[in-house]
Amino acid sequence: MGYPDSFEGFVVDSAKTWTEYHKSELKPKPFEDHDVDVQIECCGVCASDVHTVTGGWGEFEGPLCVGHEVVGKAVNVGKEVKNIKKGDRVGVGAQVWSCLKCENCKNFNENYCPHLVDTYNAKYPDGSTAHGGWANFIRAHEYYVFKIPDEIPSHEAAPLLCAGITTYSPLVRANVGPGKTVAVVGIGGLGHLALQWSKALGAETYALTHSKDKVEDAKKLGAKEVILTSDEKWAEKYAGKFDFILNCANATDKFDIPAYLSTLKVGGEFHLVGIPNAPLPQIKAFAFLANASKISGSHLGNHQEMDAMLKLAAEKNIRPLVETIPISEEGIKEAVTRVEKSKVRYRFTLTDFDKAFGGK
Amino acid sequence: MGYPDSFEGFVVDSAKTWTEYHKSELKPKPFEDHDVDVQIECCGVCASDVHTVTGGWGEFEGPLCVGHEVVGKAVNVGKEVKNIKKGDRVGVGAQVWSCLKCENCKNFNENYCPHLVDTYNAKYPDGSTAHGGWANFIRAHEYYVFKIPDEIPSHEAAPLLCAGITTYSPLVRANVGPGKTVAVVGIGGLGHLALQWSKALGAETYALTHSKDKVEDAKKLGAKEVILTSDEKWAEKYAGKFDFILNCANATDKFDIPAYLSTLKVGGEFHLVGIPNAPLPQIKAFAFLANASKISGSHLGNHQEMDAMLKLAAEKNIRPLVETIPISEEGIKEAVTRVEKSKVRYRFTLTDFDKAFGGK
Repeated sequence: MGYPDSFEGFVVDSAKTWTEYHKSELKPKPFEDHDVDVQIECCGVCASDVHTVTGGWGEFEGPLCVGHEVVGKAVNVGKEVKNIKKGDRVGVGAQVWSCLKCENCKNFNENYCPHLVDTYNAKYPDGSTAHGGWANFIRAHEYYVFKIPDEIPSHEAAPLLCAGITTYSPLVRANVGPGKTVAVVGIGGLGHLALQWSKALGAETYALTHSKDKVEDAKKLGAKEVILTSDEKWAEKYAGKFDFILNCANATDKFDIPAYLSTLKVGGEFHLVGIPNAPLPQIKAFAFLANASKISGSHLGNHQEMDAMLKLAAEKNIRPLVETIPISEEGIKEAVTRVEKSKVRYRFTLTDFDKAFGGK
Repeated sequence: MGYPDSFEGFVVDSAKTWTEYHKSELKPKPFEDHDVDVQIECCGVCASDVHTVTGGWGEFEGPLCVGHEVVGKAVNVGKEVKNIKKGDRVGVGAQVWSCLKCENCKNFNENYCPHLVDTYNAKYPDGSTAHGGWANFIRAHEYYVFKIPDEIPSHEAAPLLCAGITTYSPLVRANVGPGKTVAVVGIGGLGHLALQWSKALGAETYALTHSKDKVEDAKKLGAKEVILTSDEKWAEKYAGKFDFILNCANATDKFDIPAYLSTLKVGGEFHLVGIPNAPLPQIKAFAFLANASKISGSHLGNHQEMDAMLKLAAEKNIRPLVETIPISEEGIKEAVTRVEKSKVRYRFTLTDFDKAFGGK
């Protein structure tokens, strides 16, 4: 067997062996009229991949091929596909299907479709399995395949497909722009992109970090000021300051949440996109009352936001800071181990897929 | 001594004796040019009063005179007072002062002024004490004194000054109206008013209660349908149903919060106005992700909302369901004891202040 009947990817067998990967055959869903097959050139390594393979977000059935920041070439397009042509350089993010018929899908909220199919660790309605992008090919519905602007190199485009849209969408949905004051918490894989979007959208942007050694990076990425949350009384000085806090940190379970809420304007929102394994700290209802603050969260973004984000990144030269590693057993092991320890500035992209998989 | 130099009220000495009240002299703040003195005709009994006197919301310094749903007659108005005339029938709610100069005050958010003075258990900037409405008189800044429409009897107007504005303001700030679907959780002192506002504002309104014996009341008060949360799987049927949930229940610390969040539309809000003594249940960040839901809360409303609410109540015949008790040691004891046990349908108003305090 081989393409188009089967793909090949690096898989993990169980959470107990989350740093161990080996090549395995993957059976894709049947090819349908709206599907696009992508021969993968490179793929990002996302904290979600690590949360998944370590079992932090729950159990999974191995062998599992993860990876959902895919860039490659469209090599086959279904006969109903309209916007993608064979040969296009395209990206696939963390979602590969939705019903496109329900109320959420019709309201441009297909990322909240109750029937959505994640890029991996997920089943299609017909029972077939969705396989991730640490593989030679991926198959996805055209609505989840995005043309990559020529200005953006593939290894830098990859992290935009998940980390990018995850941080861009909540900012635009919160109407972040001129006149707004935004705080980005956690300057890592998500946060270092959030700072760039917030600045590009025209907001006065602050970075919040407990790492002194990220201050210079944060400023370069667009922060007007960097607030060190390692200072116990940091929040007092910024009471009522922010319209919107985008929390990109992974350690929210250890946060003093009421302190963050106290830095919001009346009706302001503390918005979670970093999702810790552990539950959030317990808070009192009173924490919301001094300023009618809100806690919220979101998941990815919609099709139109993905296109707009890629356009903005191309036009304003917004790029993730990427360290590349050729894909291999050892390369993946290094990447997931360092992501788990937050030892990366700020994203990994696995590359050289042509070598690992010997071309088509 | 006596009015205007001192007032007289029923006070509680400490949380240990929270059902015991006795008459005591109260020293009001100095009368200033924007102040209004109100001779009190009646005053509501709010769950906040009980949270305060029991120490559930924290310690207090006794003797303390509570009560913040005051209706009476303006008997003295400062020389700068513009909108209240001597002899007007007026109400005072749970706030008596704010700076009217800060950003929040200027943005019609004076209920979130960092310098605000609550009606009782609070100090003015000059160090003088604010005393509550279980008393013969109250003194308040004119901005916190509201004319009561002629259509609303005093004993029914009283609960609107706190329970009314607390439920009305978040609904209008969430743009509740035709085309919106609203759930009111907890059919008690707050919820029975929230149902009426939501219906009057034009929303399709649902009541959520664990009490079968409140179903009929909830329907009469405006619920299109009553959902029994005592049914363990209640939330499944209403997944993605509501634009806004106004949580008026006092037992939120025992709620399955993710179940409530799952009944929201994308971007919908679970809004707290009932404030339990205990912290909220711990939840995972994932709870927000399936529909970008929000948890929020609020505190009272602004001046314009109070006027609009009283007008709406007058025009649409919206009234709290009130049981009256003449104010006295025994009357207060009965009222606070029954509020603490949620044994009231749905509010108490203490009346006959003229008898208790022997007129002016």
